[in-house]
Amino acid sequence: MKRLADCHVAIVGLGLMGGSLAGALRGRCRSVTGVARRAGTVELAAVRGLIDRGTTDPNDAVSEADIVILATPVRVILQQIQNLAWHLADGCLLLDLGSTKTQILEAMDALPSQVEPLGGHPMCGKEFSGIDAADPSLYRGCTFILSPLERTAPTALTLGRELVEAVGATPLILDAARQDRLVATLSHLPYLLACSLVQTADATTSPDPAAWEIVAGGYRDTSRVAGSDVTMMLDILATNRHAILDAVSAFREQLDRMTALIEDEDEGKLKAVLASCQAERRRMFP
Amino acid sequence: MKRLADCHVAIVGLGLMGGSLAGALRGRCRSVTGVARRAGTVELAAVRGLIDRGTTDPNDAVSEADIVILATPVRVILQQIQNLAWHLADGCLLLDLGSTKTQILEAMDALPSQVEPLGGHPMCGKEFSGIDAADPSLYRGCTFILSPLERTAPTALTLGRELVEAVGATPLILDAARQDRLVATLSHLPYLLACSLVQTADATTSPDPAAWEIVAGGYRDTSRVAGSDVTMMLDILATNRHAILDAVSAFREQLDRMTALIEDEDEGKLKAVLASCQAERRRMFP
Repeated sequence: MKRLADCHVAIVGLGLMGGSLAGALRGRCRSVTGVARRAGTVELAAVRGLIDRGTTDPNDAVSEADIVILATPVRVILQQIQNLAWHLADGCLLLDLGSTKTQILEAMDALPSQVEPLGGHPMCGKEFSGIDAADPSLYRGCTFILSPLERTAPTALTLGRELVEAVGATPLILDAARQDRLVATLSHLPYLLACSLVQTADATTSPDPAAWEIVAGGYRDTSRVAGSDVTMMLDILATNRHAILDAVSAFREQLDRMTALIEDEDEGKLKAVLASCQAERRRMFP
Repeated sequence: MKRLADCHVAIVGLGLMGGSLAGALRGRCRSVTGVARRAGTVELAAVRGLIDRGTTDPNDAVSEADIVILATPVRVILQQIQNLAWHLADGCLLLDLGSTKTQILEAMDALPSQVEPLGGHPMCGKEFSGIDAADPSLYRGCTFILSPLERTAPTALTLGRELVEAVGATPLILDAARQDRLVATLSHLPYLLACSLVQTADATTSPDPAAWEIVAGGYRDTSRVAGSDVTMMLDILATNRHAILDAVSAFREQLDRMTALIEDEDEGKLKAVLASCQAERRRMFP
């Protein structure tokens, strides 16, 4: 398998994640071809210097590529794996950036044997989406999960690692089920909490104009990810449903426990719980 | 009543909020006297240039002050209002920085008539506490709630406004019950959600070492306020119990509704809810 520097890379999807990755890879590989549904997005990516060339035709773009990266919502990735299967070049590395991995890896496993599939999930993002929000430094310092299939050749995984490191991220090898369980709690649950908090404020305090003036850092941070792209999040919720519902149950248990301590005015226990939360939070983010 | 520039100010409590306010007021009034329980804290505040002079004896500090500011946890404020009552100078403006206002204003109402009480609640903070975290720019750009009592003289409220504006904040007049209800949803609820999220991760994903590597922006932001000072938060939960329990109920309803849509795979409705959350979040923080 080639080195990254010798590879033609095609990125399908020029939103926040795909556009940012394109910009980060450009100059570190032979060429970056960007694919988007709308010609205006392709043009914008070119004007912003994120891609070497672009097209709205994925079949055309991927047939010459040594590396194809699918940077679309999870259920679009599932379709694209099927649609693109017979257009990929022999030995092509097919990587995706979807947030859930189990269903994607199942679809990848059905690919023709000359393709080298590799699941990917970069742990970065922003609450704004689209090419306008793209930023080549987005991947710097983030953990980039790689989920190889049994069929993935070691050389393909090595190329995947090289690509991840080239954009400033740190690769972490995880199997699909474990990654889906972890991100359900650490990423998808926070999204549902942020949305439910926004809904709560909307239903209770928002009619009071003062609410808009006193809304402070705590609310701003806790609600931030509610601004995430809806199509992306809908696909995540649909393809990681069980793990997410488990995470919500576990959360509800903790919230109920804490609420009961407040109701019962059990200050001793409440203090112990809050102190352990504080210590844990500070341990995670010193 | 005097102008701020002519006032001796005493600040009781040199933690994050008191220490930051001291530093912001210094030079804008005649003097800033800092009061802390521990001599080491007073020394540190002096070394950092946050105060003109300091003491560990509140009675001594407040007797000469034109403005006394209580910057301690809510239930300590409740005690201090009683303890300091007869040590305050005639015409002294007594302001507090407590996050809940109903009980504090009740206590203030029982003060001798020559004192001018005024409830305060600056909508700023950090997840770190103590004099080490103090920062004179903390108040810049924040909304600073002022809750006058019926007995509060208009001139006292004017001086309170002047003080708030002097540190770069914007005053917002709110009555105690309304402020307590609003902050229950917009500030205290986010704290409980952050803590419950940390507890959930602790109980489910934390044993997996990969959890520490993939924890990303969503979790970091949603859990940030779980790092808040425990004593401060315990006092808030105790003195705003009913409004907070109402906010938790309202939240639980929203989370249940969203979870049901995920369980039922009702994508149409789920999409509508997520889109309205996204729009609302972006409207609040453009």
